[in-house]
Amino acid sequence: MPEDSTDKPNIVTCTAPVNIAVIKYWGKRDEELILPINSSLSVTLHQDQLKTTTTVATSRSFQEDRIWLNGKEEDITHPRLQSCLREIRRLARKRRNDGDPGLDLNGLSHRVHICSVNNFPTAAGLASSAAGFACLVYTLARVFGVEGELSGIARQGSGSACRSMYGGFVQWIMGKKDDGKDSLAQQVEPETHWPELRILVLVASAERKPVGSTSGMQTSVQTSCLLKHRAESVIPGRMVGMIEAVRRKDFTAFAELTMKDSNQFHATCLDTYPPIFYLSSVSQQIISLVHRYNRHYGETRVAYTFDAGPNAVIFTLQQHVPEFVQVVQHFFPPDTNGGQFVKGLPVNPATLSEDLEQAIGLEPMPKGISYIISTKAGPGPCVVKDPTQHLLGSDETVKSCESRSGEFQSSAEELVR
Amino acid sequence: MPEDSTDKPNIVTCTAPVNIAVIKYWGKRDEELILPINSSLSVTLHQDQLKTTTTVATSRSFQEDRIWLNGKEEDITHPRLQSCLREIRRLARKRRNDGDPGLDLNGLSHRVHICSVNNFPTAAGLASSAAGFACLVYTLARVFGVEGELSGIARQGSGSACRSMYGGFVQWIMGKKDDGKDSLAQQVEPETHWPELRILVLVASAERKPVGSTSGMQTSVQTSCLLKHRAESVIPGRMVGMIEAVRRKDFTAFAELTMKDSNQFHATCLDTYPPIFYLSSVSQQIISLVHRYNRHYGETRVAYTFDAGPNAVIFTLQQHVPEFVQVVQHFFPPDTNGGQFVKGLPVNPATLSEDLEQAIGLEPMPKGISYIISTKAGPGPCVVKDPTQHLLGSDETVKSCESRSGEFQSSAEELVR
Repeated sequence: MPEDSTDKPNIVTCTAPVNIAVIKYWGKRDEELILPINSSLSVTLHQDQLKTTTTVATSRSFQEDRIWLNGKEEDITHPRLQSCLREIRRLARKRRNDGDPGLDLNGLSHRVHICSVNNFPTAAGLASSAAGFACLVYTLARVFGVEGELSGIARQGSGSACRSMYGGFVQWIMGKKDDGKDSLAQQVEPETHWPELRILVLVASAERKPVGSTSGMQTSVQTSCLLKHRAESVIPGRMVGMIEAVRRKDFTAFAELTMKDSNQFHATCLDTYPPIFYLSSVSQQIISLVHRYNRHYGETRVAYTFDAGPNAVIFTLQQHVPEFVQVVQHFFPPDTNGGQFVKGLPVNPATLSEDLEQAIGLEPMPKGISYIISTKAGPGPCVVKDPTQHLLGSDETVKSCESRSGEFQSSAEELVR
Repeated sequence: MPEDSTDKPNIVTCTAPVNIAVIKYWGKRDEELILPINSSLSVTLHQDQLKTTTTVATSRSFQEDRIWLNGKEEDITHPRLQSCLREIRRLARKRRNDGDPGLDLNGLSHRVHICSVNNFPTAAGLASSAAGFACLVYTLARVFGVEGELSGIARQGSGSACRSMYGGFVQWIMGKKDDGKDSLAQQVEPETHWPELRILVLVASAERKPVGSTSGMQTSVQTSCLLKHRAESVIPGRMVGMIEAVRRKDFTAFAELTMKDSNQFHATCLDTYPPIFYLSSVSQQIISLVHRYNRHYGETRVAYTFDAGPNAVIFTLQQHVPEFVQVVQHFFPPDTNGGQFVKGLPVNPATLSEDLEQAIGLEPMPKGISYIISTKAGPGPCVVKDPTQHLLGSDETVKSCESRSGEFQSSAEELVR
């Protein structure tokens, strides 16, 4: 079959969201295919605050596949990148062979240039690989004219990336098959389902670089007997309870399961040998603060969850955001010379009652939290229609990507300020 | 049967040791009888460094049972004290009724005065209740002429006290019976079994008062599903492995199981809701230091274990003590104005190689550790023969106890300096 002979590159730009798990994924049963030892559930964060943008260009003039991440060229031969490229091309070939009329015949034999940037500083410590791989797979699929289920491919880039393929509340069903065909993400409820739910990312000042999650979870699977028990006997019931809590918008049930599951995940890290600590003294203080805050009101108004790092992600309802932000600001007094403490969705000022301050009664930790990103649940990956937003130009591709991504990144960092 | 009518008090003084669990006890299946949800195993620390001394006097002139702890009168009606007194008196009555010729007939209807002091500062954060109740029960038994199995009574004062009834390496077999008759301590090996084993108590500067162990373990039993799994499915195998390691003096096996079990205990605390944190940033640093030290040598030379507080108890072999103490002193530089950094068994000076220092490569934490108590495995409770050592005089009992215990305590604090 003859290839289209035009030199004009085919360019697509998409964005994809970060997600935060409330039932945690920790541990693979298959390292190659990235098959987890348990199902997990996450909330997709809104891209107005946190997103990855990726442009993919294909052209017959490109000599080789190349990738630039946040303005720096990276090694395209990384096995996980290769998995995603291979799987998308395989699907595209399959569709061509099946004679799909909608298929773009151009790109299939062409090399790709990929340029990807995050609109949040790496210092935020948010798992950028989920948004990154989700965006890569979503964009590649558009370029190669592939449609349908893509979470299984995103999963092979980074496990939790499969959950970033959908908006709202998303479960990653672990599946049973050895080939991983049934290990896929699925939307539980869309982002519009629970409009009162608010999310605050408390960016903690990192004391040290934590153990990476890939090697951390490997060690946990090999050494923690509590992790095995958690995966087999605890999570199945929690998944049912969490889906139920989300569907019914039962904040108390949602919040308590979220906190318990975060704690249990960190417990299995401590049961790992040698033990892994992701919770810093700031994290521990946030945990105490949340429990004391809830106890003061005699109800669960706020929940925390922590991934493989010290940052807290807080869930609460809209009506409690102003006061809780005030509490955080009081017990973690920010650097007065720094920028805005609260970025993202505006938060109204509130006063902190003496009662509440005394009920919490913790020793303030100055500068323990660098800033807060205020956000909510948001949609899944989107195509960017405006061609001026491409991160790769039609000529001088490399240079363009490097300079534009730099531009983009700094304006994007402004975005979350 | 007529009671002896002499007014002369019957006075006995005994000492009892602290023990440190290497397979941890956490959680009761019966709060009243103090029956644990799992078996545990401990090493009895030497009384030359750490002990409780208790004098019990009985006299027909005493109007009521009274107790002084560390120079201060305490409430004798405390249920756990009452359990011990009641059980010892019950055994004594039983022996009298059985017509035992060795029985001291004096005390049975007499009231007791109890005076108990620790030779270690409370600030050391060592579980003093184990030594305290072991000493109380052992001394009461001598006063009332009761012999034989006493660990079941000590257990009803404080669970881990039953293990302080023996020297060396001691298991507390959880038992199966509802009445607790088979929940007893048993010596695995005597203190002479493993003379090369050394113990260092690293007294960490406490950041805050931790959750008490009684309420902590209650909450854990009620809320942690990992604790249940640990008790039922993990500990039985670990008990077998630990007894085997102790018998064979296999330091590597002993050390690794000790560290894993400490970590798992703290993991279950984190899985408790709300979570409990006993490990401070200093504790976490000690854990990192030990693993890096061992990794540097490619063998497990040092092990840590932590109870319900931030202090580390370190196990190592005699030959490694000088260097390891030097390492601790380097990475936790002590207050130069303070007293001796190492108390107890003398430790030879050592130099720290640059290689080792770099391999550990942690940021030093000045004053993170207040001091080290250097000790080893030691014997169980002993009777003090020298009558000048009684903490209660034959007259002016109360006053004498209060002043003498003060005296004793300060000289005892010298002891561990």
